[in-house]
Amino acid sequence: MITIWGDPISGNCLKVKWTAERLGIPFTWVDVNVVNRETRTERFLAMNPAGQVPTIVLEDGRPLAQSGAIILHLAEGSALIPTDRYERAKMLEWLFWEQYSHEPTIAVVRFQVKYLGKPRSELDPGLIERAAAALALMDRALSGKRFLVGERLSLADIALVAYTRFAHDGGFELADYPAVEAWVRRVEAELPIKEPR
Amino acid sequence: MITIWGDPISGNCLKVKWTAERLGIPFTWVDVNVVNRETRTERFLAMNPAGQVPTIVLEDGRPLAQSGAIILHLAEGSALIPTDRYERAKMLEWLFWEQYSHEPTIAVVRFQVKYLGKPRSELDPGLIERAAAALALMDRALSGKRFLVGERLSLADIALVAYTRFAHDGGFELADYPAVEAWVRRVEAELPIKEPR
Repeated sequence: MITIWGDPISGNCLKVKWTAERLGIPFTWVDVNVVNRETRTERFLAMNPAGQVPTIVLEDGRPLAQSGAIILHLAEGSALIPTDRYERAKMLEWLFWEQYSHEPTIAVVRFQVKYLGKPRSELDPGLIERAAAALALMDRALSGKRFLVGERLSLADIALVAYTRFAHDGGFELADYPAVEAWVRRVEAELPIKEPR
Repeated sequence: MITIWGDPISGNCLKVKWTAERLGIPFTWVDVNVVNRETRTERFLAMNPAGQVPTIVLEDGRPLAQSGAIILHLAEGSALIPTDRYERAKMLEWLFWEQYSHEPTIAVVRFQVKYLGKPRSELDPGLIERAAAALALMDRALSGKRFLVGERLSLADIALVAYTRFAHDGGFELADYPAVEAWVRRVEAELPIKEPR
């Protein structure tokens, strides 16, 4: 059985959990508290020198890190990866965009406000602007569409919904992004996601 | 023929160029100046709403963005993607790590110092520390190894070499990371890379 080392406050970790659940892949979950720096212990760094969750350990004991790489590995050959070559590429585009432009803005605002207790007014205004721009980009992309890529749920939806559904923790109102809000509800029902928002 | 919209100062764009060259994929290169905000024109945003290079346009006119997604698309079925399932996952781990922990530190320090003309002493010390940590992590990973994954060149090497070979522009000495320095030379010779450091 695979082991997922993860922190339940981390959307990156929940992506991995939801992908495994959706695909019926059994796993053991080990809680790692990021705020207490439990990813910086010698034991953890031996598994993942980058000191980041999620990290999984495969049945044969080999570790794998980076949420995007893990979910692509778990979902290989499944219906969560489009068979059409261009749709598969667009799904990858969303996975990389999430890690570059979405997580470092939306998740960082959330972390600072909710977990470090900083007033939103003291955050870098550029960071908040980039987070809002990411939500606006998704809202345009999802307008008139059920899922991010093609006609069905893919890893793109799982990866993007993770921090989008927590955006309110950072002071963003999903009601301002109606196509995003409808899509979040759709993906939550489809997976299904049991963790409360 | 595909069209690559790119800025030659961007390692993200060079990854795409080198992958196409290595695979013998013909392309047209269109210069886009990032510093002059040429990615923010209406025409460019219609192609890629994220306003980022590289963006490619496929033969049928459909666009694709995000360097990681583009090189995975171009290299599908080629020797640049390991056939072993675990090695393929590790290659993806490097691609995502590069976009999350390497490019936002090493490339950002370079951009601020070389292209915005900021004195290095005025940069965020935390940013410089994270960039140095990324180089140190690579140095440990490359110790005693020819390539990042398995025994041959993969997309991981192409993606990681792009900004690593320009690290000196941001004031980092590759001589401090001997396994990285030897690997940069190896990858430059193997591809081969014609662009000067």
